[in-house]
Amino acid sequence: MWKFRKIIYPIIINNSFRLPTKQACLEQLNKLGINYIAHNHDPVPTMDDLIKIQVADGTAYVKSLLYVDKKSNYYLILANHTTQIGKLFWKNLGLSSGNMRLSKEEQIAETLKSSKGNVNPFAIANDSNNLIKNIIIDEELTKFQRLALHPIENTSTIEITLDDLQNKFLKSLNKNYKVLQLTDVAAQQKLEQQKDQQNQQTLAITVKKSDFSEWYQQVIRKAELIEYYDVSGCYILRPWAYFIWEQIQRYLDDLIRREDVENTYFPMFLPAKNLTKEKEHVEGFKAEVAWVTRYGDSVLNEPLAIRPTSETIMYPAFAKWVQSHRDLPLKVNQWTNIVRWEFKYPTPFIRTREFLWQEGHTAHSTSEEAIKQVYTILDFYEQVYNELLAVPVIKGIKTESEKFAGGDFTTTIETIIPQNGRGLQGATSHHLGQNFSKMFEINFEDDKRQKTFAWQTSWGLTTRSIGAMIMFHGDDKGLVLPPRIAKYQIVIIPIIHKDIDEIQLIERCQQIKQILIQQNLRVHIDARDNYSPGWKFNKWEQKGVPIRLEIGPGEFKNNEVRVVQRFDNKKYQITIQELNQLNHILDNIHNSMLSKAKIELNQRIKKADNWNEFMQHLNQRNTILTKWCERTECEEQIKAKSGSESKEKDLEIDGQIQLTGSAKTLCIPLNQEEILEGQKCFHCGCQAKRYVLWGRSY
Amino acid sequence: MWKFRKIIYPIIINNSFRLPTKQACLEQLNKLGINYIAHNHDPVPTMDDLIKIQVADGTAYVKSLLYVDKKSNYYLILANHTTQIGKLFWKNLGLSSGNMRLSKEEQIAETLKSSKGNVNPFAIANDSNNLIKNIIIDEELTKFQRLALHPIENTSTIEITLDDLQNKFLKSLNKNYKVLQLTDVAAQQKLEQQKDQQNQQTLAITVKKSDFSEWYQQVIRKAELIEYYDVSGCYILRPWAYFIWEQIQRYLDDLIRREDVENTYFPMFLPAKNLTKEKEHVEGFKAEVAWVTRYGDSVLNEPLAIRPTSETIMYPAFAKWVQSHRDLPLKVNQWTNIVRWEFKYPTPFIRTREFLWQEGHTAHSTSEEAIKQVYTILDFYEQVYNELLAVPVIKGIKTESEKFAGGDFTTTIETIIPQNGRGLQGATSHHLGQNFSKMFEINFEDDKRQKTFAWQTSWGLTTRSIGAMIMFHGDDKGLVLPPRIAKYQIVIIPIIHKDIDEIQLIERCQQIKQILIQQNLRVHIDARDNYSPGWKFNKWEQKGVPIRLEIGPGEFKNNEVRVVQRFDNKKYQITIQELNQLNHILDNIHNSMLSKAKIELNQRIKKADNWNEFMQHLNQRNTILTKWCERTECEEQIKAKSGSESKEKDLEIDGQIQLTGSAKTLCIPLNQEEILEGQKCFHCGCQAKRYVLWGRSY
Repeated sequence: MWKFRKIIYPIIINNSFRLPTKQACLEQLNKLGINYIAHNHDPVPTMDDLIKIQVADGTAYVKSLLYVDKKSNYYLILANHTTQIGKLFWKNLGLSSGNMRLSKEEQIAETLKSSKGNVNPFAIANDSNNLIKNIIIDEELTKFQRLALHPIENTSTIEITLDDLQNKFLKSLNKNYKVLQLTDVAAQQKLEQQKDQQNQQTLAITVKKSDFSEWYQQVIRKAELIEYYDVSGCYILRPWAYFIWEQIQRYLDDLIRREDVENTYFPMFLPAKNLTKEKEHVEGFKAEVAWVTRYGDSVLNEPLAIRPTSETIMYPAFAKWVQSHRDLPLKVNQWTNIVRWEFKYPTPFIRTREFLWQEGHTAHSTSEEAIKQVYTILDFYEQVYNELLAVPVIKGIKTESEKFAGGDFTTTIETIIPQNGRGLQGATSHHLGQNFSKMFEINFEDDKRQKTFAWQTSWGLTTRSIGAMIMFHGDDKGLVLPPRIAKYQIVIIPIIHKDIDEIQLIERCQQIKQILIQQNLRVHIDARDNYSPGWKFNKWEQKGVPIRLEIGPGEFKNNEVRVVQRFDNKKYQITIQELNQLNHILDNIHNSMLSKAKIELNQRIKKADNWNEFMQHLNQRNTILTKWCERTECEEQIKAKSGSESKEKDLEIDGQIQLTGSAKTLCIPLNQEEILEGQKCFHCGCQAKRYVLWGRSY
Repeated sequence: MWKFRKIIYPIIINNSFRLPTKQACLEQLNKLGINYIAHNHDPVPTMDDLIKIQVADGTAYVKSLLYVDKKSNYYLILANHTTQIGKLFWKNLGLSSGNMRLSKEEQIAETLKSSKGNVNPFAIANDSNNLIKNIIIDEELTKFQRLALHPIENTSTIEITLDDLQNKFLKSLNKNYKVLQLTDVAAQQKLEQQKDQQNQQTLAITVKKSDFSEWYQQVIRKAELIEYYDVSGCYILRPWAYFIWEQIQRYLDDLIRREDVENTYFPMFLPAKNLTKEKEHVEGFKAEVAWVTRYGDSVLNEPLAIRPTSETIMYPAFAKWVQSHRDLPLKVNQWTNIVRWEFKYPTPFIRTREFLWQEGHTAHSTSEEAIKQVYTILDFYEQVYNELLAVPVIKGIKTESEKFAGGDFTTTIETIIPQNGRGLQGATSHHLGQNFSKMFEINFEDDKRQKTFAWQTSWGLTTRSIGAMIMFHGDDKGLVLPPRIAKYQIVIIPIIHKDIDEIQLIERCQQIKQILIQQNLRVHIDARDNYSPGWKFNKWEQKGVPIRLEIGPGEFKNNEVRVVQRFDNKKYQITIQELNQLNHILDNIHNSMLSKAKIELNQRIKKADNWNEFMQHLNQRNTILTKWCERTECEEQIKAKSGSESKEKDLEIDGQIQLTGSAKTLCIPLNQEEILEGQKCFHCGCQAKRYVLWGRSY
């Protein structure tokens, strides 16, 4: 840095003055009656550093640039820090932008007695030879209340008004200045348009639903359901998605409350010794359990598992709470997060390492009561899928090898994703029998004072359900939401037009919104003026909002709205009076979505009586219903054989399998045709017991 | 075991037969036309093993006991497995119980041709010398449909009817038998009464509230709020407690929704590198963070922290979502569990290693808007405490050393537990300034296209609030619940009496319940017939139910109910018509609870102008308001000095401090008296800045 001898007070030369230091500068400003807000800090030689200094709202960060042309004419430009100086600006000054250069160190020293990183308008006072003849102020700066500038040294920033800079400081130096538009305005506007267009383009889904995997990733991101996170298998549920989960919670809570189930909260941590109490159970889960071994810098005496499911956390407490038959039935539920460190490659909603769910646990005094509970819950789950998510499901029982580890039998609801014919387990409800009650000593004296072990159930539904909904209903444009779980059921788009007064139009929208809110509908008006109607149509379609109401000049005059249904793109006009039909319209949309989905699901279920038919159907991406012997050995063979004969091989990503090519049992459907003596298993030829549904799965 | 030569078919001797094996036994039963359900299993030599065999409902597990007296008379007793044979039984047979012995191995072999662990009635067929002259059947067994017995060998259990045993099997052997009451009935009843009394006694809280620590532990357990768990610092929230949390969630969700805050869910795991981004923040939290280092048998590449708070999880996503000023304000909230591996000894609700909370995070384009948000939320928190929990709080600002690590300033609501004058932090609302937005690059272009960093807030309220409520309102009888968060607001107790028809009485209770439900009240009828009214009064008082309605003969005849208020034990009659006042009555109870609590809180706030006064008040278990200089150095000195001069020393349990004796700053109350120039800090004599509240704390 070029340094002056330290001079304490300004020296007056030629009715101007020299300002060698920050102190001198500030004293001069005081003398001129200029108010300023001062900040002191470490040196800030660049704009990036400057903008980290906290200044008041309405204060512009100013960049001071000293340009020089080929004839050594200097131009000191004071600009808003984001302003880009355009070619037109120089052209208007009779200059060619190609000839302009930012001043070098020695030039800055010669003129301003300053240096790079320190250029500032106050240093003009040091231009004793009047080398800087052009002072240009960015027109943008007139929009600000104050300007942030360095008072000679960049260890300080002061905020002063443009008016004071012009009419007190520069005037006192007899310096002229011009206020000009620096940006090439037309070019700037074009740039902004291009940016917006790009945004609009990246906004759209760029693949069709038939490119299913890529389509899914784009939909969940662009509909703002999911944000990615830097722990593999963990995803952020944005409000648009979390709202769906809240609707499911509310609905299911109402149902289970009728069964006198009470909500509770058990700890997340599980000491190792508890996990190992039920032998089959631990075998089924231990590979996926995440272990906490340290806190701060210390090591835990005993590592703690994070719950993969809470049976072993809850049941010791159950043993304390269940003494007499009067303590039964015991019915609790909790809504929590769960961690299972899956081996398979993750898919948002469908298979994640952390997910949200509810887990219900009941204990009963008789086997009959427990079994009844299992099936009641399964019916509730079916309702969640049908009535909220408009997703069709098949109720069934899991085979012995697929059932809950440690339980007696598992009932399930399964769906089939039409795009790829893969089975997706929707929720499960287990009869645990007395397996856990014997391990955990959950026993009681019945009314004959007989010591008996309790009969138990457990059941769970997860955020995977949201994935099923996305996969079923989404289309090439993006997400399609069933009305009952959409955060906004209706979006109102005012079409601004010169023929209508904008204020009246917005008022009309608000009246309509009020009418709809009275009907308990969730409504949003998108009146943002920086987006075109077309952009808004795309945006809300992509987010899956069930109904769009458009109000343009025609609708405004005729007291109508234009209705556009996301599900089937039906478009029609209705009057304001007819708005009371909207609940009904939404119900119809829900029913249509469910019907369509049922058809698509059923198209993916085929029957097979032999292996050839089976593999043919499988390779055409179907699930297959067959007569089966229910022997685990036979099941294993079918899995292996179907894998090797599958046209679709296992899909691996990053060394982890995401999707397998082989078929497995999805369930033994509750809805069974009768099987007669002599009818054989489709695979091994033994006597068939029941029909079973096979398929590739998630 | 005594073994026979294997004989395939029974040998007939003296019109009786010998049954050497299970097979022979079963064949004989078939011959006699006796139906049985058979179970085969590993040997079950003891009753404990036997009862693990699954039998049908209504089937008794039978113990077969061969007694012998001093004269070698044998008595084969078939009893229900829980039956205790009493002295009276033997006395009625003309025997002294002291002379009776269970047969030894050789005696069992001689008579039944069997062994210990194998005694069973079918072996009577082998008593060829008719040594067993007394067969006695427990009268209890007549209440069952079937009996579970071993057919000669204990690798099998069969279920047969008592009738078949008596009238087909024993008859075919010409054996007489008696059906007698084995238990000493009066003695049994006395035993049961004693047990019930014990239950009732252990039910009551055994200490007064003045024995505060022990009182608290008993209340939370006996009111069935908490169950203990075998990980230190983790507790089970039972439905009675979790309901309170759900009410808080609902109430607060409604409030923040008015502020356009949206619920969301971010992952629980946090890679180490994210945690370290904001320097002060990580310093404040890292000692308490729990680390996951393994899954299954594998080691994680990068250890993952469990969220102690979610700033560093959320803000990278904020940076993506905030591009333009139109993206602001951004307001999200989540209801989650949190883990902080505290050093202090845990206290349920108050300080736990895992707890439930909500954390709200907002980003704004101006500092003013952010600060306004901070205070709006603080007001909401005050409403939760006042309006739901009837707990009074003081709003204030934390000192620099107590504020949120990495934030700009922290506002807080503090309460004071009257029992011990300890401050309890109720909830906090932080202005983060631009500290985090600069670290995480949450910046945006404002409407002048200026790049600015967002201004942020974060705020949280936890399950600790429930602990404050318990501590304020509970009394010597147990929990006292404010009406708005009680799972049952009203419990109806029918007083059974010979003067009223029980069925009509229960009907009356149900009518009353219906009337109350119409008013949106939460009502429970306790009509259990195995508990006395007095027992029920105690039970529901202990659980803190706000109102008890008793209906006895008088009330029934006069169409009245007797009202008993838990809060103040006021008792009065009202008519059925007057039931519509109950909402109003409950509101009054709430207001009275809050008023009383405010008085108690204020009694614990004293003023001090010098150190002596300060310590005097502190040692009398008060909080103290003083003028203070706000110098951190002074604050540290006061902490240290108050600790050494404190009459109450640090309370340590298991090597961990639970409560400290020293005072710290609780807050700088928003409600300030003016401090004039010249007024000094009470401790160090510097110019005082503001009043601050000091106290021991939780």
